[in-house]
Amino acid sequence: MTAELNRKVVLAKRPDGVPDESCFRVEDEELAPLENGQVRIDVSHLSIDAFIRTTFEEVAYHGGAAVSATIVALGVGRVRESRSDQFNPGDAVMAPFGAQTIATLPDVMLQPIDEKRAPMTASLGVLGMTTGLTAYFGIREVGRVQPGETVVVSAAAGAVGCLAGQIAKIDGAARVIGIAGGAEKCAYLTKELGFDAAIDYKGEDVDKRLRELAPEGIDVYFDNVGGPMLDVVLDQIREQARVVICGAISQYHGDMSKGVRGPNLYLRLAERHARMEGFAVTHFGAQFEEAEAQLVEWLGADSLKLPEQIENGIENFGATLQMLFEGGNTGKLLLAV
Amino acid sequence: MTAELNRKVVLAKRPDGVPDESCFRVEDEELAPLENGQVRIDVSHLSIDAFIRTTFEEVAYHGGAAVSATIVALGVGRVRESRSDQFNPGDAVMAPFGAQTIATLPDVMLQPIDEKRAPMTASLGVLGMTTGLTAYFGIREVGRVQPGETVVVSAAAGAVGCLAGQIAKIDGAARVIGIAGGAEKCAYLTKELGFDAAIDYKGEDVDKRLRELAPEGIDVYFDNVGGPMLDVVLDQIREQARVVICGAISQYHGDMSKGVRGPNLYLRLAERHARMEGFAVTHFGAQFEEAEAQLVEWLGADSLKLPEQIENGIENFGATLQMLFEGGNTGKLLLAV
Repeated sequence: MTAELNRKVVLAKRPDGVPDESCFRVEDEELAPLENGQVRIDVSHLSIDAFIRTTFEEVAYHGGAAVSATIVALGVGRVRESRSDQFNPGDAVMAPFGAQTIATLPDVMLQPIDEKRAPMTASLGVLGMTTGLTAYFGIREVGRVQPGETVVVSAAAGAVGCLAGQIAKIDGAARVIGIAGGAEKCAYLTKELGFDAAIDYKGEDVDKRLRELAPEGIDVYFDNVGGPMLDVVLDQIREQARVVICGAISQYHGDMSKGVRGPNLYLRLAERHARMEGFAVTHFGAQFEEAEAQLVEWLGADSLKLPEQIENGIENFGATLQMLFEGGNTGKLLLAV
Repeated sequence: MTAELNRKVVLAKRPDGVPDESCFRVEDEELAPLENGQVRIDVSHLSIDAFIRTTFEEVAYHGGAAVSATIVALGVGRVRESRSDQFNPGDAVMAPFGAQTIATLPDVMLQPIDEKRAPMTASLGVLGMTTGLTAYFGIREVGRVQPGETVVVSAAAGAVGCLAGQIAKIDGAARVIGIAGGAEKCAYLTKELGFDAAIDYKGEDVDKRLRELAPEGIDVYFDNVGGPMLDVVLDQIREQARVVICGAISQYHGDMSKGVRGPNLYLRLAERHARMEGFAVTHFGAQFEEAEAQLVEWLGADSLKLPEQIENGIENFGATLQMLFEGGNTGKLLLAV
C-alpha cells in the first residue's frame, strides 16, 4: 500500500505587492502516525480571505508566517481518523487547517459543524468568523446602524460586503449603497441582494455618484478597501457618522507594519463630530454564540443570501488568492481542495 | 475733536504655510455712527487660536475669510457705547470681535461676562469656548477618560493641552503624559500642572519615551497636532483606545480642503478595536452651561490652572499668531490690543 500523501502550499518567498505564483510552492509530504489527542481531517473547502495576505509579512498583526511554512487558511472538512474521544470519523469540522489537503490537528483546535443547520460551507460563509460574524459585528456593534440611515459598503460584492449590506437593510437602513467593480456585480447587489443602489467604481465617478445617491450625506461607511476611496467617503460623511474599519484590501502590500496610505481627510471626523472605529471579529468572541443564532435564523428565513464562488484544486491556492485581490469574485470565494 | 479711529488687521493675502508678516495689513478706519441695536466695544484682549489659520483658506471649515477682510478672532472687552437695551457702557462682554481695537456689533452677538466669577480674560481661557470647553468636552465626552487609564496629550503646553491634561487627572487618569517642545515647558507641566510625565519632542525620542512611560500602552490620546506624531501614538494604543481628534496644528498649511497627511497607522484601530473620534466644541452647545459651571467650580477650588501669556499691540497680531504655530507660548496666548 502506497502511503497517502498530504499536499500543501507553502510560502516560497515574501511577496512585494499582490502575491504571484512565485510566492507559492506546492509540496507533498507523508502522513506521520497520529498522536494521542490528534485528529486527521480530509479538508473539503478552504476560505479565501484577505487576512491571509497580511500573514505574508515578516511583522504582521495576524502573526507573520515563516517562509516555507504552510500558508494559513480556515477550512471545513471531514474527520478521517481520530485519536480523540471528541471526534469520530465522518464528523464535519471547521478549523484553521492551513492550505493543505489533509490536516492533522489537536482536537482542541477543531469546531464541530452542525450540518442540520446549514451545509458545511456555510460555516465559512454566512456563519463564518471571517465572513458572517465579521459583517454582523461590524454593522451592529461598531457601525450601530439605526433605522432610516444611509449606509455605504465598499468591496460590496465580496463576501463580507454582501452580508454587511443585507444586515444593514435588516436593521432598518433607509438606503444601502454598495461600491463594487463592474456592472455585473452591481446588478447582482441591487437585483439579488436588496441593495438600494450600487456604484461601479471601475466605470463610474464614485464621488459624484455618491453625492447623487446620498445628497444628505453618509451615516455609516463599512470599509473593506481603504486607500483613496476612504477619502471620497470621508468627504461626504454626516455629523455623527461612523466609519467602520473592517479592512483595507487596497493597501495589503509592502511592509504594512510601517503603515499604509492614511486617510488624508481624517479631519472631517473633527468637523463633523464623527468617528472611525476599527475591529477584528475576535474582539467579540463572547458574543459569537448569540450572533450565530441570529445568522442561522436569518439564513433559514431566506433574508440573508451569500453566493459562493468555488474554485478547484489545492494547486490553485495562489491563483485563487490573487483573484480575491483583483476583485474577480462575487460572494464567498472558496477553494475545493 | 479728532474722530477716534478703529485699528484693524486684515488678511493681505492667503498664506502658503505658516503665515508671515506679508499676509497681514494694519488699517485705520473712522467709526460710523452706531445703528439701533448695535453696541461698540473697546476690545481688551484677543484669543490667539489655531483655528484662525484655517479661516485663511479659500475653502474652509470655519468659513473662509475674504482677502482684505478683518481677521476673525474671539475677544473680550468693555462696552463704550450702546444702542441696545441689553448692554450698558462699562459692561464686560465676549464676542468674535475680529482683530481690531474697537468693534461694532449687533447686541445678539455679544455674551455678557460675569466678572465676579473670574477675571475677564478667563472667558477666553479656562472658561473659553476654544480653550476650557474644548478641553472639557474632548476629555469627558469624546475621550471618556476612565479612572486608572493612561492619557497622552499632544501640544500639552498649549492652552487646550494644559487643561485637557488637568481634567484627565481630575477624572481619575492614573497617568497623564504631556508632549511639548522644550525642557522648560515640560518642567512646567509636571511641576506646576500635575502632569505625571512630559516628553520634550524637540530633544527626546517620543516613540521610545512613550514606550518607557506607558509600557502597557495608551488608553486615550488627546491630539492637537496630527502629522507623524499621531502615528507614533497610534502604534502604542491599547485595545479599546480612544484617539480624540481636537486639531492638527502641524498640518494647518496649504489647501487643507484637499486633505492633510493622514495617519498611516490607522489600521491599528482595527487591530486593537480602537476608535478615532473628532469633535468641535460647537457640537456640544447644549451642554455649555453645565460645563462652564463645572469649570468655574474647579477654577475656584484651584484644581485647574492656566497660565496666560500676554503679548501687546494689535500691530503684533500676525507675529503673535506666528508664535502660536511655532510653539512659542506656554498656556493661553492672548493679545492685549
